[in-house]
Amino acid sequence: MDAHQEAAHETAPDDLESVLAAAHAAARPLARSTPAERADALEAVARALEGARAELVALAGEETHLPQARLEGELTRTVFQARLFAAGLRDGSLLPTRIDHADPDWGMGPRPDLRRTVVPIGPVLVFAASNFPFAFSVAGGDSVSALAAGCPVVVKAHPGHPRLSLATARQVTAALAAVGAPEGTFALVEGVEASKTALTDRRIRAAGFTGSVRGGRALFDLAVSRPDPIPFHGELGSVNPVVVTPAAWAERGADVAAAWVGSLTLGAGQFCTNPGVVLVPDAEAFTAAVDLPVPGPMLHPGIVEGFRTATDELASQPGVRSAASGEAGPDGIAAQVFSVPAADVVANPHLLELEAFGPAGLVVGYSSEDDLRAVLDALPGQLTGSVHAAADDPLAVEVAGLLAEHVGRVVWNDWPTGVTVSSAQQHGGPWPATTSPTTTSVGTAAISRWQRPVAFQGFPTAALPDELKD
Amino acid sequence: MDAHQEAAHETAPDDLESVLAAAHAAARPLARSTPAERADALEAVARALEGARAELVALAGEETHLPQARLEGELTRTVFQARLFAAGLRDGSLLPTRIDHADPDWGMGPRPDLRRTVVPIGPVLVFAASNFPFAFSVAGGDSVSALAAGCPVVVKAHPGHPRLSLATARQVTAALAAVGAPEGTFALVEGVEASKTALTDRRIRAAGFTGSVRGGRALFDLAVSRPDPIPFHGELGSVNPVVVTPAAWAERGADVAAAWVGSLTLGAGQFCTNPGVVLVPDAEAFTAAVDLPVPGPMLHPGIVEGFRTATDELASQPGVRSAASGEAGPDGIAAQVFSVPAADVVANPHLLELEAFGPAGLVVGYSSEDDLRAVLDALPGQLTGSVHAAADDPLAVEVAGLLAEHVGRVVWNDWPTGVTVSSAQQHGGPWPATTSPTTTSVGTAAISRWQRPVAFQGFPTAALPDELKD
Repeated sequence: MDAHQEAAHETAPDDLESVLAAAHAAARPLARSTPAERADALEAVARALEGARAELVALAGEETHLPQARLEGELTRTVFQARLFAAGLRDGSLLPTRIDHADPDWGMGPRPDLRRTVVPIGPVLVFAASNFPFAFSVAGGDSVSALAAGCPVVVKAHPGHPRLSLATARQVTAALAAVGAPEGTFALVEGVEASKTALTDRRIRAAGFTGSVRGGRALFDLAVSRPDPIPFHGELGSVNPVVVTPAAWAERGADVAAAWVGSLTLGAGQFCTNPGVVLVPDAEAFTAAVDLPVPGPMLHPGIVEGFRTATDELASQPGVRSAASGEAGPDGIAAQVFSVPAADVVANPHLLELEAFGPAGLVVGYSSEDDLRAVLDALPGQLTGSVHAAADDPLAVEVAGLLAEHVGRVVWNDWPTGVTVSSAQQHGGPWPATTSPTTTSVGTAAISRWQRPVAFQGFPTAALPDELKD
Repeated sequence: MDAHQEAAHETAPDDLESVLAAAHAAARPLARSTPAERADALEAVARALEGARAELVALAGEETHLPQARLEGELTRTVFQARLFAAGLRDGSLLPTRIDHADPDWGMGPRPDLRRTVVPIGPVLVFAASNFPFAFSVAGGDSVSALAAGCPVVVKAHPGHPRLSLATARQVTAALAAVGAPEGTFALVEGVEASKTALTDRRIRAAGFTGSVRGGRALFDLAVSRPDPIPFHGELGSVNPVVVTPAAWAERGADVAAAWVGSLTLGAGQFCTNPGVVLVPDAEAFTAAVDLPVPGPMLHPGIVEGFRTATDELASQPGVRSAASGEAGPDGIAAQVFSVPAADVVANPHLLELEAFGPAGLVVGYSSEDDLRAVLDALPGQLTGSVHAAADDPLAVEVAGLLAEHVGRVVWNDWPTGVTVSSAQQHGGPWPATTSPTTTSVGTAAISRWQRPVAFQGFPTAALPDELKD
């Protein structure tokens, strides 16, 4: 089956209406479910995915061409993630409350008893990504964080893995039904038009998206131009700059170059945290140390095409030259490294927005510390920034601080690919990395995107939500 | 001086450019300031405002026509609020951090050391409100929460109190300079065009607004249509419904009606939390118990005009009739009460979006519990909802739960006006109450609107921000 034929499939208007009506109807009973009930539901989803591992991984392999080990690991991550949200519901850490008792002596005048909890924002529309068929797709981070918050979830399937999407949705739906979750808690829809209709329907109260800047921007524009605008949490694009300090270069330059290539070409470079730009003190020596592997097959023909276009655009920018090229893989594309002097980047910061989704990197040669600082000052928002430092390296500390002004996660002496799911994770950043710079789409803090605070003033204990009782 | 002549004053383009350049330049040193330094700055602002109390209250009285006691109280609240943010910086509660130590046995694969803190989002543009010349204006909640977060602040003065705005800004600027805050930490600009230019300037990274749905929507649209969209936190409109249960009505109906009028006409009804809609089991008896006072002077002629238009529109809706009208005040307008059967509201929920900013209320008569539930289901987003209950009143508990689906704060047996500033406060709600339903514009949690999380991965202790060190 060709993924691009499948992409033409659209959920019919009547079916979409049923999905939206059911999601709307499920919102109230879900909002009234207990944290333990939601944890049960997420654990049931986790068990169902684990139980269908062989079927799901095989389907994912057929549709995405990603290697089995990678897909096994990604499914493990996805199951773990659902369980982590369940654990946070059970221990209360994902349901923040705050109690201010009445205070007649409060400095601005007597204060009533005031207690704040969170309620689910309502039905959430999730746009699945192509490059993580499990972890950022049907049962991925957006879906489980929204379910944990108590929101019905409607997922727009990515056309790159339609059969996997349906199979995953079947597992999720059956698992939720088995633990008694309200009908309408979860549904899958397909097609661009159906998803746009859903995004602008008043019953959808928020949206999550993982994908390109162009696609994300178009959907963001729809969400915010509704008569009743809604939050749109889009994780878009990033070149994830890596800085190699002169001291790190002197200490272990060739090792850093080899490791960079490993991170850059991992999974044919199809990661939003792919380190597409590296800043080094000696671009010529760095690129000479680069040995590019043959890339594996890419996710689908659209990504191959996009990679060609993006690398052509990169190559045509002032000062950019091709510095290394590997052997072509099964899709006819090769890993590529370009180089450019820092001064050309400062003159044309647009270079730092040219994400070539795939195995291509840009080596920026800086000739002085000020040259490096000027590039960092011109950085658009990024998901991550990394610094490779020597043992005693004051410049690296300064660089980490400068990167923190533009990125969501700063990495020390390591690579940005491989994003752990935990409480302290922050996967986000200023535009164009995301549409929502104060939130994260990975880690348990992602739940806050779907939680709306509500304060209760002057309530008798019996009338308070349980979590707000003394 | 006529406020409307003053409204024509526009900050000149060159001056605006200087303000934006200075705010941009201040962002980095402010971001690197310690929490104690920011607390010092806020306390200096508080002292300066307190020190200029006589001058500021007199100016506010001249320009807003609000009574002195109200203005004294509002200034007290504003000073208190600045000090509350300072206290939260000193005790660390406003700077959330999270540390995940490295864990080789983490369920999805080895976890690196990961530590999350918050950084300021960058220069913030604040649109001051007309109705709170201190608490939601130049040195109000948006400004002090953004300063607490470490963001430079540019305030767009409200034309309703231009001299007060300048006088307040002088106090703030001098206080900040005296404690050594970076130049550019704070500035005032004037005029619609200047503020639109600022809102779409790449150096402004977020905005806060308090005002009307129409004005807020226009600015929201500008903020989200930038090439680099930014968060726009607008606190817009609300009719703040109040439900009187049959049991409460039977117990103390006339007292509730009298108290409602008190809250409705407080400050000539010029509060965003004004309880504009009350749902009662017997509309005729309720309106018969209403005794409307003569309203005091309104803030400015534009508000008088808007009130006339809004009450005319309300009066023309199907099923709405005039139920009570008081004696006209100095602006020629009278307090007014309309009534409408619940069925007409359900058929025309638009009625629940017709905020008449001023001393006007709508009494909705419900004839059964289901009738009441149908109105609550049709509610657009609100800042607050209140329920008046008897001692043992299961319906009131249910109503509180239904209100929580649509509002930011639910009030029990009290009125929504008078919003305390504390940790548990939530002043927000779904559209059209705000553009930003997961945040608050009052209370210390307001700081999170201006904080961007950043995670540090694998850092040696010496290179970590202080607050993330073990």
